[in-house]
Amino acid sequence: MEGHRNKIVILGSGNVATHLAVALDNVADIEAVWSRNMSNARRLCSTLRNAKPTDNITEVERDADFYIVAISDDAIVASASALAGVEGIIAHTSGSLPLATLAEAVEPSPAGVFYPLQTFSRTTDVDIKSVPFLIEGTSHGTVEKLSGLASLISETTYPIDSATRGELHIAAVFANNFANYVWDIADRYLREHTEFDISVFRPLLTETLRKAIMIGPHNAQTGPARRNDRGVIEAHLAKLNDDEAEVYRLLTEKISKIHQ
Amino acid sequence: MEGHRNKIVILGSGNVATHLAVALDNVADIEAVWSRNMSNARRLCSTLRNAKPTDNITEVERDADFYIVAISDDAIVASASALAGVEGIIAHTSGSLPLATLAEAVEPSPAGVFYPLQTFSRTTDVDIKSVPFLIEGTSHGTVEKLSGLASLISETTYPIDSATRGELHIAAVFANNFANYVWDIADRYLREHTEFDISVFRPLLTETLRKAIMIGPHNAQTGPARRNDRGVIEAHLAKLNDDEAEVYRLLTEKISKIHQ
Repeated sequence: MEGHRNKIVILGSGNVATHLAVALDNVADIEAVWSRNMSNARRLCSTLRNAKPTDNITEVERDADFYIVAISDDAIVASASALAGVEGIIAHTSGSLPLATLAEAVEPSPAGVFYPLQTFSRTTDVDIKSVPFLIEGTSHGTVEKLSGLASLISETTYPIDSATRGELHIAAVFANNFANYVWDIADRYLREHTEFDISVFRPLLTETLRKAIMIGPHNAQTGPARRNDRGVIEAHLAKLNDDEAEVYRLLTEKISKIHQ
Repeated sequence: MEGHRNKIVILGSGNVATHLAVALDNVADIEAVWSRNMSNARRLCSTLRNAKPTDNITEVERDADFYIVAISDDAIVASASALAGVEGIIAHTSGSLPLATLAEAVEPSPAGVFYPLQTFSRTTDVDIKSVPFLIEGTSHGTVEKLSGLASLISETTYPIDSATRGELHIAAVFANNFANYVWDIADRYLREHTEFDISVFRPLLTETLRKAIMIGPHNAQTGPARRNDRGVIEAHLAKLNDDEAEVYRLLTEKISKIHQ
């Protein structure tokens, strides 16, 4: 892509669209931001160099190299299909929508996936360079072009297929959603029984996460379940309410089993 | 404690003893390091300014202000009781041993708890300033002195009682041990089904932890269980083995319940 500055259209104005647009604005020409909500499109464009806001998808430039569709899963097909026929690549940013679904909707345009493996908040800067981008495309050339675009803003891009993206989503439910839930139990327990909340564990959890990734979570496992310390386990169960105890009992049983 | 430099004896040479000794060496005079294992005591002393190694607890100076007992729970009483009668404060660093157990063993010496809420590794530096120290003592004066010592190396020290320390331990099993276990499931799932491992989630998990502490894990909860998205949930369950499915089903049920 030397010497060529990509033209990009962004569909969407939410957290993912905003973070991607701001990052891409440094390395490409964002021509337009489309959003159902014109004031959101305007707000996002005000942070970009030359992008024009619109809420009418038929007004969008049809000469872009990439159309990045960063909207909710159930709106992707309806919005993206209005672009069918463009020469540029139409790529969604979803962790779970299959590529084939988008590809059918935008035929004969090339379709792809441009999925940043990160959670984005409106108020928080994310170091986009460290975010892995998972890339798919309806042809090898499309994968190459999307990977090239991703590599302009991130240090890690991986070509994968929709099946693998689905497996990553399952793993992320455990790693991300379920970890957050056991933090939620801990937070509520602390608030009920002490003057602390989860924030007292910030240094501990930060280090535990670092260690789990450094040596692998299996090797990093500690605690009464790992040691199968029945005295401590029974004492803890006696202090818990029914919901807490059910979770404690099952996870303790599973940890003891794989470490026995 | 102005103008007075504390004299300290360290019992132990493991990870906790090492990290505490190195930190305390900057703000106090460590007179001696006792360990059952003389070569470990020598190794630790080689990183300290003036501490003498010993494996004979009766040789330990009896004029110290603090005796920090950083050894495994089941060895604390036996080792610390050899110090009974000293004027200085004898404090263990355990998250679970009740203060009363140590206090009885070292009577009439003042006893306390000097518990850093962190996990320590041999090879990793920890930013000790950010580690919360949980402090107990057999008298108000003892708590004050131990808190004063902790505040020389950490920005956050809390006086608590043994019951509260027990509650924190229960919460830590959820927040720390169980979070690590769901990461372990994710790691094994990724290795079995993809070419990735848990490290692909490092930026995501770092941000999820940050967000959970910033806005509280209840508000930070995302995922199919939070949305009660039965289609996704059933599709995921169909891909999991029995152990994985049992954990997925229970945690999904609990998350749906508290967010319904």
